[in-house]
Amino acid sequence: MACHQFNFIYKYDLLEKLKPGGTFLLNAPYNKEQVWSHLPGFMQQRIMERNIEFYVIDASRVAREAQLGKRTNTVLQTCFFAISGVLEKAEAIRKIKDAIVASYTHKGEQVVKMNFKAVDMSLQHLQKVDYLDNMTNTEKLQPMMAGSTDDFVKAVLGTILAGKGDELPVSAFSPDGTFPSGTAQFEKRGIADFVPVWDDEHLCTQCNKCVNICPHAAIRAKVVSNDLLTGAPDSLKRVPAKGRPFNAETESYVLQVSPQDCTGCDLCVAVCPAKSKEIDDFKAINLRKKLAVEDVENSHWDFFIDLPDYDRKLLKTNTVKGAQFLRPLFEFSGACSGCGETPYIKLITQLYGDSILIANATGCSSIYGGNLPTTPYTKNHQGCGPAWANSLFEDNAEFGLGMHLALSKKQAIAASLLNALTSEIGHTLVEAILSNTEETEAQKEQQREHLSELADILEKINTAASKRLLDFISFLRKKTVWIFGGDGWAYDIGFGGLDHVLASGENVNILVMDTEVYSNTGGQTSKATPVGASAKFSISGKPIAKKSLALQAISHGNVYVAQVAMGAKDLQTLKAIEEAAAYPGTSIIIAYSPCIEHGYELKNGVSQQEKAVQTGYWPLFRFNPLAPKGKKFRLDSKAPIAPVSDFMYNESRFTRVVKEHPELAGNLLEQAQDQVDVQWERLSLFKDL
Amino acid sequence: MACHQFNFIYKYDLLEKLKPGGTFLLNAPYNKEQVWSHLPGFMQQRIMERNIEFYVIDASRVAREAQLGKRTNTVLQTCFFAISGVLEKAEAIRKIKDAIVASYTHKGEQVVKMNFKAVDMSLQHLQKVDYLDNMTNTEKLQPMMAGSTDDFVKAVLGTILAGKGDELPVSAFSPDGTFPSGTAQFEKRGIADFVPVWDDEHLCTQCNKCVNICPHAAIRAKVVSNDLLTGAPDSLKRVPAKGRPFNAETESYVLQVSPQDCTGCDLCVAVCPAKSKEIDDFKAINLRKKLAVEDVENSHWDFFIDLPDYDRKLLKTNTVKGAQFLRPLFEFSGACSGCGETPYIKLITQLYGDSILIANATGCSSIYGGNLPTTPYTKNHQGCGPAWANSLFEDNAEFGLGMHLALSKKQAIAASLLNALTSEIGHTLVEAILSNTEETEAQKEQQREHLSELADILEKINTAASKRLLDFISFLRKKTVWIFGGDGWAYDIGFGGLDHVLASGENVNILVMDTEVYSNTGGQTSKATPVGASAKFSISGKPIAKKSLALQAISHGNVYVAQVAMGAKDLQTLKAIEEAAAYPGTSIIIAYSPCIEHGYELKNGVSQQEKAVQTGYWPLFRFNPLAPKGKKFRLDSKAPIAPVSDFMYNESRFTRVVKEHPELAGNLLEQAQDQVDVQWERLSLFKDL
Repeated sequence: MACHQFNFIYKYDLLEKLKPGGTFLLNAPYNKEQVWSHLPGFMQQRIMERNIEFYVIDASRVAREAQLGKRTNTVLQTCFFAISGVLEKAEAIRKIKDAIVASYTHKGEQVVKMNFKAVDMSLQHLQKVDYLDNMTNTEKLQPMMAGSTDDFVKAVLGTILAGKGDELPVSAFSPDGTFPSGTAQFEKRGIADFVPVWDDEHLCTQCNKCVNICPHAAIRAKVVSNDLLTGAPDSLKRVPAKGRPFNAETESYVLQVSPQDCTGCDLCVAVCPAKSKEIDDFKAINLRKKLAVEDVENSHWDFFIDLPDYDRKLLKTNTVKGAQFLRPLFEFSGACSGCGETPYIKLITQLYGDSILIANATGCSSIYGGNLPTTPYTKNHQGCGPAWANSLFEDNAEFGLGMHLALSKKQAIAASLLNALTSEIGHTLVEAILSNTEETEAQKEQQREHLSELADILEKINTAASKRLLDFISFLRKKTVWIFGGDGWAYDIGFGGLDHVLASGENVNILVMDTEVYSNTGGQTSKATPVGASAKFSISGKPIAKKSLALQAISHGNVYVAQVAMGAKDLQTLKAIEEAAAYPGTSIIIAYSPCIEHGYELKNGVSQQEKAVQTGYWPLFRFNPLAPKGKKFRLDSKAPIAPVSDFMYNESRFTRVVKEHPELAGNLLEQAQDQVDVQWERLSLFKDL
Repeated sequence: MACHQFNFIYKYDLLEKLKPGGTFLLNAPYNKEQVWSHLPGFMQQRIMERNIEFYVIDASRVAREAQLGKRTNTVLQTCFFAISGVLEKAEAIRKIKDAIVASYTHKGEQVVKMNFKAVDMSLQHLQKVDYLDNMTNTEKLQPMMAGSTDDFVKAVLGTILAGKGDELPVSAFSPDGTFPSGTAQFEKRGIADFVPVWDDEHLCTQCNKCVNICPHAAIRAKVVSNDLLTGAPDSLKRVPAKGRPFNAETESYVLQVSPQDCTGCDLCVAVCPAKSKEIDDFKAINLRKKLAVEDVENSHWDFFIDLPDYDRKLLKTNTVKGAQFLRPLFEFSGACSGCGETPYIKLITQLYGDSILIANATGCSSIYGGNLPTTPYTKNHQGCGPAWANSLFEDNAEFGLGMHLALSKKQAIAASLLNALTSEIGHTLVEAILSNTEETEAQKEQQREHLSELADILEKINTAASKRLLDFISFLRKKTVWIFGGDGWAYDIGFGGLDHVLASGENVNILVMDTEVYSNTGGQTSKATPVGASAKFSISGKPIAKKSLALQAISHGNVYVAQVAMGAKDLQTLKAIEEAAAYPGTSIIIAYSPCIEHGYELKNGVSQQEKAVQTGYWPLFRFNPLAPKGKKFRLDSKAPIAPVSDFMYNESRFTRVVKEHPELAGNLLEQAQDQVDVQWERLSLFKDL
């Protein structure tokens, strides 16, 4: 048996089914002398009772030193075959190396070499633990979801998370099949080896770009009144809050990471503009070994997360900084470390999360969005947050349209019921509720207050009609439907339906997280895949250009269309989301999303997005049919200033083809450049629209 | 029992199941004195033997006189209820009038009045036939498909056509489920009351526009050597052939209608430019009562159709006139009289019919295209013609792509087998076959000859390899796949797949026959339906603009795209088809198609198409990605010269809304005009592409 993720040893009774005398391999950040004292008591007991052959390796360190980054699979596979006895050791190592040649040759000779090195180093670092009969700890296995106070979450979701869902009776679940939101926060996956720490609060510019780009909402900023910090841990950093609407004398800015929720992707450090002039490679935030900082930082987080959010009415939410003080209602998802999709979702939930319904296409976003038993979608302090559901891959746009039509009908019913009770409720309140457009935070707050007042009145009236309105009262709030999905859905499998919704004119908002490939199923070519990219079904480079979903959407004439890349121009992304939300018809935002399938270290996702825009590979623009003539189409990026290869050849999806089919690659690059030029020319035509 | 179509009396034993003393109503172009002598013997016998109450009405005449055009339903319904005894007569008439109010009020008061008038006139013209016991004729019921010499066609298809398909065993059908083509020619439906006759061969300009626009290929032109006309009926008109490549001294032009295949739509007369200066309303062709001319014209047709076609190599097929001397391989379909779709299909079969495979979406074109047991797709004198199949509504583009991929594979296999046999076949012939691109008629003829030669050689070689190549020999011909369908398929239900094929870059050609509504299922709104049009699901006028399938297709960048309207500019249609066929990637032609669902007399389909183009409602253009820069996009129509209402308000799909919702209609018209303006502006942007 092998455990590749050290923190699993506290969460699962891994050795429950290991036979006496069995072999156990643990990936641990400790050597054979240190590791025993870090095992929980119940695991020490199992090992001793069963006389287990116990091996340890710091696979993460070996992988790093062998230049494999976070990819520990070769290391752990080598160790497994070295000790499992499934094959004779020498033969096993030979076969592993053969497999490396077969698996990685298409990624280049360098990758093969690094993996060979990792194999050799693995064998050197694999250690057998000579444990004695000494139980040093007493911990029992902790129940899952222990942080929750909700019985259903602890008992039912906890049991599923522990891998024992089959033991639950059907009656344990809610009759309507819904699951509570706000549950990913109790998982505390803790998968990072390194986490960012706010090292220098004075170097920090308080720009909140780190908060914005974080795929997991694991780094947050708050501005709080100084008096709220009196009980804070001494080591909690704080600094006078800069900028409007803050008062630097009475309010402090605090930036905090949750080490147990961070995945260590390094994007926050990469995006941080606050570099030290004195110390090389030192920024306001820097990665630190989690083991060294987690106790202190966990305590900071626990204090920090309970601090109140700043008054939404006062924040300048049309700036990246301001918007990032809004509480995200999408946090700690199971998306890949460095995911380029989730920051878009997070931002939408920060802006509108308490009043949206989400229809989610099948794909990565349905997996990390509804990764049962937990979900990263959560609620604010008023208990409001997104309602979320996933239908099929092929019908998500229609699914969302259906949600919208049902919602509109319910809103109409609620308004009609309210009108009918005017004489009993009072004209002023009815009018105030019906006329509130909820465009500003102040209006939203007022509506919540009015509805609370209405609820009290209705309870007093206590007639059949008032009870019925009480059932519908939440539909007196403005709510909107967002339709989420990836390019496999939007460009391909669900495109027929998407086009139908675009043609409907209905007021729904669509977010396409474009990774340019079927990500969730392992990297198959989609119509979003660019010319020259290697993907399954076009392994020697896609011979045909990516289609322009944006141009197709613009052709409808009455659809708000934006093409964005948060890493390249975060403010443009924010504006596009605000405009899409405000647009009274159908809106679609096509969001460039770096993905592990692109084949580069995702901490460079921001600079790659910048290059994508600078080379014209991914132009930024917004098309607003309601803008005055001449201003409908805004090209938000500049004419290309560098060849497209400056972008492409940083990603192995493109360089793979160069290595294997150099001549073909040259031809594909030419096509790609041509494509970029033609695209720019086409978009330039729209300037006078 | 009622028979609404007079010529059915010769084809079916209608009275077989009528009980003794039953009532029979016949719609006939004869009065009670005349009709008896026109009944076939077997029908006279049935009537006499069973003492049938026999009524006659000339419903077509009553409908015409009541300004209902060809719509006889109100007339015949009235007669039915007047004599059937289902209801008391006065009550029946009252209920019919109520029904007219309910059914036609939305079409306007005038329509209601005309139908009321028809009811009254029907009762006046309904006559009881006082037949005596005198059988004047001796005909027996003729077998169906009697014109064919093929046993399968006569026995199996004939039985199905007679309505007795259930009596056929499964073994009667071909094991692979295919049906022979070229069978609609034996149906001889003869549904027209009036047919065109070539009255004045000297007035005729020989432009062939009548031949081009005919939806049923029922009017044809040939140029033949004079000596071939020596045995012609004396009354067959002919005139010296005009223009190149003809020799006016030795060759004659003959224009001939098939009265039994014509549906009397009047389009040929409407499009005829040759008006007499002396006689009002007199053209080179004019409608004549079929009864008066059919005997003579049938004999003309029988002679005419056996005359040879002109040598394809010599014809100027890039002109409308020249192309219309090519034999149509799509003839006498069951499409509606005046159908705007079928002339496009007919033209494609004239140009390329002997070497195409057609994938047909479900819809009108699959019904009239594969109206089993017969099909209008037919073969030339060499036995070659289109292969045709229909899959599902939603997957036709993929179906066609699959045909193309299979075809390409078979072509590659054939070439490979041929290459492998080079030493036995001879290098010269192999090279000649493989290098022939079959772009011209001469090349095509040469390829046919070479393949015939090859077949002889292969039979002599007589090895396993030569036999295998013989199996594949037809794939050494150039063949292409055409994908046919309507707007319901292309804009809506099959759009996801269509887009996928457009993005494929594969060399298939797509024809979208755009009637702007689901025609075959009775007029439901599609994404092709224009703003302001009344259709099912948008009965008060569609509130949203038609989507631009052309712009969406152009956005792919590497797709040949044309928007055409044959009635407005036939030469542009011809050019677009030729360019699409020649384009080495994916091509799509979006073809405006007048339809009975538009609500006007389809004989005006040509002038309506002209108005659609002149008002900018339907701009004509072609986008050829391979054309040099600045010439990729050709706008083939001029800037709008009249308001769009000049087009719209000739069609009841638009005027219906004006009558019922005048204010709404004003608003919709404004939107429609705005839409036209925006569309023109957008297209104008492309001029520099």
